[in-house]
Amino acid sequence: MTIKAINVRNQLRGRIVEILTGPVLSEVDIETAGGIVTSVITTRSVTELNLQVGTEVLALIKATEVSIAKI
Amino acid sequence: MTIKAINVRNQLRGRIVEILTGPVLSEVDIETAGGIVTSVITTRSVTELNLQVGTEVLALIKATEVSIAKI
Amino acid sequence: MTIKAINVRNQLRGRIVEILTGPVLSEVDIETAGGIVTSVITTRSVTELNLQVGTEVLALIKATEVSIAKI
Amino acid sequence: MTIKAINVRNQLRGRIVEILTGPVLSEVDIETAGGIVTSVITTRSVTELNLQVGTEVLALIKATEVSIAKI
Amino acid sequence: MTIKAINVRNQLRGRIVEILTGPVLSEVDIETAGGIVTSVITTRSVTELNLQVGTEVLALIKATEVSIAKI
Amino acid sequence: MTIKAINVRNQLRGRIVEILTGPVLSEVDIETAGGIVTSVITTRSVTELNLQVGTEVLALIKATEVSIAKI
Repeated sequence: MTIKAINVRNQLRGRIVEILTGPVLSEVDIETAGGIVTSVITTRSVTELNLQVGTEVLALIKATEVSIAKI
Repeated sequence: MTIKAINVRNQLRGRIVEILTGPVLSEVDIETAGGIVTSVITTRSVTELNLQVGTEVLALIKATEVSIAKI
Repeated sequence: MTIKAINVRNQLRGRIVEILTGPVLSEVDIETAGGIVTSVITTRSVTELNLQVGTEVLALIKATEVSIAKI
Repeated sequence: MTIKAINVRNQLRGRIVEILTGPVLSEVDIETAGGIVTSVITTRSVTELNLQVGTEVLALIKATEVSIAKI
Repeated sequence: MTIKAINVRNQLRGRIVEILTGPVLSEVDIETAGGIVTSVITTRSVTELNLQVGTEVLALIKATEVSIAKI
Repeated sequence: MTIKAINVRNQLRGRIVEILTGPVLSEVDIETAGGIVTSVITTRSVTELNLQVGTEVLALIKATEVSIAKI
């Protein structure tokens, strides 16, 4: 089933630069135009999506999950 | 109380370009090097932090909140 | 840009049965095989995706967001 | 302390069909009327709630955590 | 259906001191031993649970949602 | 870069009483005035922030992540 569109407003395009694999969850580091974005997903998803260093992906972030800090 | 460091791995620097204010929650759009990042926070926080169009901020996103899509 | 696959493990297919629209966020109720699933997304996303009562959608839920209760 | 009611709108009833145990977090797969729902919770919670394959549970998901994709 | 136990590790007991009602979502402020805890839930849940100033409640927070800052 | 203020409304001060370290994620237990608060963050963050038993920290929780149960 192809997804035509998704409501997730934040979609940062990038390339995987590192994968740290654990028994249940894995950390996937993605190089984007805005810097490294780190994602934690299930190790099963890493395998099923066949994610590897170099794979081009979108990092998706729901707007309600974004906090703001003043600097 | 000043925060010296925070564990949130994803910190995208940017400038607020639009604020859509609701009675309880507001949408804050931030222009970053990786594109527009949209955040939804309480309207009280917008007021207390004195967020305005032009304010420089960090968008903070916990790694467990980042999903990955293959393109 | 078409999304070929997404890591989000929980994908519940259904049809929108009600939309409650607010100024910033909207509640979207989806009838699935497992019952009604309620989603809160930005009103802008509702408009951009042209979501309406009757639209067929996938409800996507990251595995780290699912809690478990014993009954 | 018994919980009489909870605001979490999405409560999917099901039976645990698999538990993948890690040192800190575990993946729990629940068979519901809408398909398999995957949850990631702390391994300590799995032990304290005595969750096992076959245990009947509710999968709880806050409405703000549900995204929508058009198909 | 009574919930016997829930995996959510963080359960802060308190009393509601303020409710700010919006068309879709509401802010509920809870006085706990650790200070005021603010929750944003759907306005429908506020109505269905009959939440009012003075109601005794538990604030529930999944461990994966808690960030840490050094001070 | 010092953070002057953050929109996260729930900031519970406490002291770390236990750290359970996994290969990717770790559980950090914090003693606060309201009881133990459990956080799950990346093991890399634990290392980079030099978190140890006894370290004084703030537990930060976004208001949209707080659910409410009636007791």
